[in-house]
Amino acid sequence: MGKTNLSMEQLVSYAKRRGFVFQSSEIYGGIAGFYDFGPYGAELADNIKSSWWRHFVYNNFNVVGLNSSIIQNSKLWQASGHVDTFVDPMVDCRSCKHRFRADHVAEIDTNNLTKLNEALADKSCPNCGEKNSLTEARNFQMMFKTFVGPVEDDAATTYLRPETAGGIFAQYDNVRETTRKKLPFGIAQIGKAFRNEITPGDFIFRVREFTQMELEIFTKPEEADKWFEFWKDYCLEWVKGLGISQDNLRWHEHSEEERAHYAAASTDIQYKFPFGFKELYGVANRTDHDLKSHMKVSGKDLNYFDEETGKNIVPYVIEPSVGVERLFMAVMLDAYHEEEVDGEKRIVMKFHPDLAPVKVAVLPLSKKTELSDVAKDVFKSIAGEYNVEYDETQSIGKRYRRQDEIGTPYCVTVDFESLEDQAVTVRDRDSMKQERVKMGELKSYLEGKLK
Amino acid sequence: MGKTNLSMEQLVSYAKRRGFVFQSSEIYGGIAGFYDFGPYGAELADNIKSSWWRHFVYNNFNVVGLNSSIIQNSKLWQASGHVDTFVDPMVDCRSCKHRFRADHVAEIDTNNLTKLNEALADKSCPNCGEKNSLTEARNFQMMFKTFVGPVEDDAATTYLRPETAGGIFAQYDNVRETTRKKLPFGIAQIGKAFRNEITPGDFIFRVREFTQMELEIFTKPEEADKWFEFWKDYCLEWVKGLGISQDNLRWHEHSEEERAHYAAASTDIQYKFPFGFKELYGVANRTDHDLKSHMKVSGKDLNYFDEETGKNIVPYVIEPSVGVERLFMAVMLDAYHEEEVDGEKRIVMKFHPDLAPVKVAVLPLSKKTELSDVAKDVFKSIAGEYNVEYDETQSIGKRYRRQDEIGTPYCVTVDFESLEDQAVTVRDRDSMKQERVKMGELKSYLEGKLK
Repeated sequence: MGKTNLSMEQLVSYAKRRGFVFQSSEIYGGIAGFYDFGPYGAELADNIKSSWWRHFVYNNFNVVGLNSSIIQNSKLWQASGHVDTFVDPMVDCRSCKHRFRADHVAEIDTNNLTKLNEALADKSCPNCGEKNSLTEARNFQMMFKTFVGPVEDDAATTYLRPETAGGIFAQYDNVRETTRKKLPFGIAQIGKAFRNEITPGDFIFRVREFTQMELEIFTKPEEADKWFEFWKDYCLEWVKGLGISQDNLRWHEHSEEERAHYAAASTDIQYKFPFGFKELYGVANRTDHDLKSHMKVSGKDLNYFDEETGKNIVPYVIEPSVGVERLFMAVMLDAYHEEEVDGEKRIVMKFHPDLAPVKVAVLPLSKKTELSDVAKDVFKSIAGEYNVEYDETQSIGKRYRRQDEIGTPYCVTVDFESLEDQAVTVRDRDSMKQERVKMGELKSYLEGKLK
Repeated sequence: MGKTNLSMEQLVSYAKRRGFVFQSSEIYGGIAGFYDFGPYGAELADNIKSSWWRHFVYNNFNVVGLNSSIIQNSKLWQASGHVDTFVDPMVDCRSCKHRFRADHVAEIDTNNLTKLNEALADKSCPNCGEKNSLTEARNFQMMFKTFVGPVEDDAATTYLRPETAGGIFAQYDNVRETTRKKLPFGIAQIGKAFRNEITPGDFIFRVREFTQMELEIFTKPEEADKWFEFWKDYCLEWVKGLGISQDNLRWHEHSEEERAHYAAASTDIQYKFPFGFKELYGVANRTDHDLKSHMKVSGKDLNYFDEETGKNIVPYVIEPSVGVERLFMAVMLDAYHEEEVDGEKRIVMKFHPDLAPVKVAVLPLSKKTELSDVAKDVFKSIAGEYNVEYDETQSIGKRYRRQDEIGTPYCVTVDFESLEDQAVTVRDRDSMKQERVKMGELKSYLEGKLK
């Protein structure tokens, strides 16, 4: 017992049963690639976002935030290259009408349509088995399309952003000017992004709607390598600080073939998911590719005047980028523990207190008004700044187990003695040790523990 | 001087110049009805959301959170009535091809197509003036349409959510079961919503992409009136607590004609915008309409078993719903002050400290390394939990004015004396009084002030 590895099936079932993640539109049969965070999942996701913001924005005086809209003028996505190149090659079967990723059917790892069509020539349909039934491979746009304004024509067509970074580059100059920042400085953003994946899967690992936390560090070209190394380390330290075990993390440096043509360097922090080591956090040196592309298409001058040299330069960009859903999965998998207590199995989510969805549970020993009134007063005395749960149903043992299963660091029990001694019992999730604390000192006691 | 009322033009210009709100895709000519929050706006919006969550979720032991996806199965929006009824009537001009809101051209306040077409019979095109050129009025869907999966057909069509509430109703039973809540209990959600407004306008008052903060309180039918009154008052108290003046707020109770056919009661908190008193916060008693509609279309049993009476009931719903962008505007307008200081005009945003985008600015008196090194250490000693700005450029007077204009409650100045006495000067935004504080005590001094 102790640290136990969950299978994907077990994780999905646990996440639903304990109110962390539900299938979106479940009562309508769901919708592939979309999930809802339940009450505990919503808190956990928010705590991940808040920790990221504090560490990446508040701790660094040269990083500021931005919150740009999901829908932007489609020219932005032309400039970023997404309209032309954010595509997956597809083939249809003329016989059974199924559609497939061309590279999966062709069994080669390329997006080159000529090569794909060559490799597809002798393939049958993977669904119905028909020979010579596959169409030519063609590109499928992975951005979700929509129409702004009352007319559905080309002029009105735009897309849901496939990443938050585009909004940062488009506002680079407004942000620089209003905050008067000098190089190097960063712009951070947390927000939804959308990708119409052909084959979403692995629970919330590859979803069609997800939340990105992206940071674009603008730097002098000659300092880009230095800051790339700095932010790589910074990201890993933060991930480890969330309580994720070093054993489940590793670096994966991209080869020249793997990385985008404009990137000078690119590396991932990978996490050991049940389906193998996969990308958790990506860090790239994107050179001056983004700002130059936007300068070209918009016609705006995005040069930076370097006071030291008196020259105009186009800054390089270092981009650490991570998805909340993947971190959420890693945190859940790493927190899951099974232990034997008095001959019975106890499941406990050993979340870092910063991430725990419920910080404290207030549990009156019985439902009797004399106790529940006091317990509600105890709730009021500590609630407000963080999430506190009040629960008066079932036996105290079952309630402790329930709080362990959602990872609540501290349970506060109000019993009949509390009416006499004005004290409560505080139980620690991990050690299960109990301590008697005066009600009047409870708030500061818990604040000390949770810090 | 003192409290000064901004015109809309002044607000828009101020919000851009001071890094609060930029036009989305500005470098590409913008996109109507979409805005980005700049560095200070992103913080202000986050602070509004965080205050709401603390007051509506954390302070109430019977309210829990949810974070459902923006894209849901389209059946959800059929059940909610949005596919059929969330429409605006439109007419086209056959001559100039312009499109208009039919009720605006007809100059009558109705969505009834027959009545509209009668009134439109003798109207000319408002754009080109042509007579008999207008088409019949027809309904235009205000939800943004998109396609999920690789095929753009009817089966793949779905919508960006027009409100966050739909996701709450669809997950009502999963949330109730996993949190084991009894009536009355609430589910809260903060998230983006999208409406393809024909005529977006009034800056960020009527936008096509916005952020809602919605709470659905599920209650026994006979207690709905009581809880409607309770949450009405709760909402107003919260809005006043943000520092918005009572003089700029009023109630507007909806008449039977104004409110939806299923609503038993509906009322707005209105704010006095530069264009008049308009809806800020809506509170409605939606009866059992939502859950019954979802039961009917999904075929799922969403009855609640009342242990006291042994009967199955469909809960009533009280819904307080507010948009972050409207609150943001109200907070900006209310905070703006002009004052005369030593014969000069000072602009100051008197934000409530909880909402101020920057809590503290650290300002070394000069750029010299001996001071800036100490000032950076001061920054590090207080940063992490809230937003602190570090600024070493321009004269100290100009830097104070700049911080006043973004509403920073406290400026910390590091001067040459600091090197000797290990103390800094703390300046209060509103009183402009200065106090000398030991560096070692600065963190707790500021925490005390900001609480």
